[in-house]
Amino acid sequence: MIKERSYAVIGTGAVGGYYGALLHKSGREVYFLLHRDYEKVKERGLRVDSVGGDFVLSKVNAYGCASDMPPCDVVLVALKATNNGILPRILPSVCKKGGTVLLMQNGLGGEEEIAGIMKHQTIVGGLCFICSSKIGPGHIQHLDYGDVTLGEYTVSHDGAGITGTMKMIAEDFVGAGIKVHLVDNLEVARWKKLVWNVPFNGLSVVLDATTDQLMKSCESRSLIIKLMEEVCEGAAACGNPVEKDFIDTMVTATDTMTSYTTSMKIDYERKRPLEIEAIYGVPLEYAKKAGATLPYTTMLYHQLKFLDRQNSAGV
Amino acid sequence: MIKERSYAVIGTGAVGGYYGALLHKSGREVYFLLHRDYEKVKERGLRVDSVGGDFVLSKVNAYGCASDMPPCDVVLVALKATNNGILPRILPSVCKKGGTVLLMQNGLGGEEEIAGIMKHQTIVGGLCFICSSKIGPGHIQHLDYGDVTLGEYTVSHDGAGITGTMKMIAEDFVGAGIKVHLVDNLEVARWKKLVWNVPFNGLSVVLDATTDQLMKSCESRSLIIKLMEEVCEGAAACGNPVEKDFIDTMVTATDTMTSYTTSMKIDYERKRPLEIEAIYGVPLEYAKKAGATLPYTTMLYHQLKFLDRQNSAGV
Repeated sequence: MIKERSYAVIGTGAVGGYYGALLHKSGREVYFLLHRDYEKVKERGLRVDSVGGDFVLSKVNAYGCASDMPPCDVVLVALKATNNGILPRILPSVCKKGGTVLLMQNGLGGEEEIAGIMKHQTIVGGLCFICSSKIGPGHIQHLDYGDVTLGEYTVSHDGAGITGTMKMIAEDFVGAGIKVHLVDNLEVARWKKLVWNVPFNGLSVVLDATTDQLMKSCESRSLIIKLMEEVCEGAAACGNPVEKDFIDTMVTATDTMTSYTTSMKIDYERKRPLEIEAIYGVPLEYAKKAGATLPYTTMLYHQLKFLDRQNSAGV
Repeated sequence: MIKERSYAVIGTGAVGGYYGALLHKSGREVYFLLHRDYEKVKERGLRVDSVGGDFVLSKVNAYGCASDMPPCDVVLVALKATNNGILPRILPSVCKKGGTVLLMQNGLGGEEEIAGIMKHQTIVGGLCFICSSKIGPGHIQHLDYGDVTLGEYTVSHDGAGITGTMKMIAEDFVGAGIKVHLVDNLEVARWKKLVWNVPFNGLSVVLDATTDQLMKSCESRSLIIKLMEEVCEGAAACGNPVEKDFIDTMVTATDTMTSYTTSMKIDYERKRPLEIEAIYGVPLEYAKKAGATLPYTTMLYHQLKFLDRQNSAGV
């Protein structure tokens, strides 16, 4: 009999709260780290309003302090990338020796950051295709999708193949009712997600628009495609080429989506820091090192940096 | 004795109203075309609150209809470029045979448009360095500057030199207390003005910022310089090279300016159409024909087109 794997969830929000709650509901041992919502969740548990069915977990293992948590087999990090600065003082105690860090975050560079903290630990990247948001303390609203793509991190950024660790996590996720895709090469998967995130997250903030507004107008549509092409150029330069028809696939998929407000736009409206470095800064840096300058993406990056600064200054 | 030159002012706003009022005050014969403000100006005249001294012209030659105006020696066109569509039905009757059209407008392509309407007429371009705005019907507020640069248009876009027509207009302007600079090559002067207009007008709208905010933040500052470099690149490709240290001069000048809201931002806030084609579309088209693709400028152009459309749709 295989011993049941335990999960720590760092960042119990729209993503961590949703997947953590599903794992808990399916019988996994799950420990949630909370910050502002700690008291409320300790008292009332987690509530998920989901297109797949609403549910309430009236009692969960809630922690306000990482040092009180037991070491876990898998540490699911679902913080905003802008909060990764707290990881060095959390991960070492929360992750079991020989355990795995599962990073569910947008953009590039996160696994590298974790590798710097947890030198000999296995790191798996998780890409979430989900529309969800936290609408109250311990209260998650899940509107659509929910698939997770898993790939294992390698220092060389080469493909790790489909590893045993990935399969183990996939087993737990599938058992919790989550659709999982396993990929040979995490880096390629991350660049592919950027093909969507780079144009839509940034332009939605700069142009104050929803995805359908951006798709409808011919000028913004041409900008979206131009930005997607640049991301593919960056990916190829970094040795992670994206298949040729992927841009068409993304454009068609977005055309058929309902009007959607990107997570970056939601963050901007709530005056929260934007995940600019993970989605723009690091990819641009990688691309530049590989000899690709991406002017449209660079301009968007600088515009977002300006807006983020004004926003945090309360201007 | 030289016969006194008569002036028609087409577009009696922040620019046309100001310069027209000064010409009238100095004793020139000036005929003003008005649209919304016609009744008020007919009744009360023009009022100018100026750093150079306030004055009121209680009676001016105000017209609500171009066909009622006498043919004039000089037709001063000071419409927003977005309103140039009315010129074909105005210019032929208002401009005397052998007269001159003086276009006081931002961007490129305006003289060409006028040349298409008035095939054998002399066309002079006027570049205004002025902070002024219309704050009420027939009421102009002049905050700072006011210099005018004049250059004569040629079909070939080569320099016309300092022509007799330019000198005549300069004489009237100087007589009205306006500082005038004459330039050999209008096209170079227009590109030079774009070096400032392209970054500041566009970014002030897209990033919702004043000039000093854009200068202060390192990311927007680097975008400004990048855009200025592209405009210089476009100018050079079109055979109108701008001297090397001009960018430094513009940056230093803007650093020492007080906080300034660009005219495009004012138009945007008032939900008026933006002068996007004259300042971005036409220069990009000229540059492209000459083999220069300007990605930062192109992106800004597309962003502005999107925002302009949303703005006019009242979204």
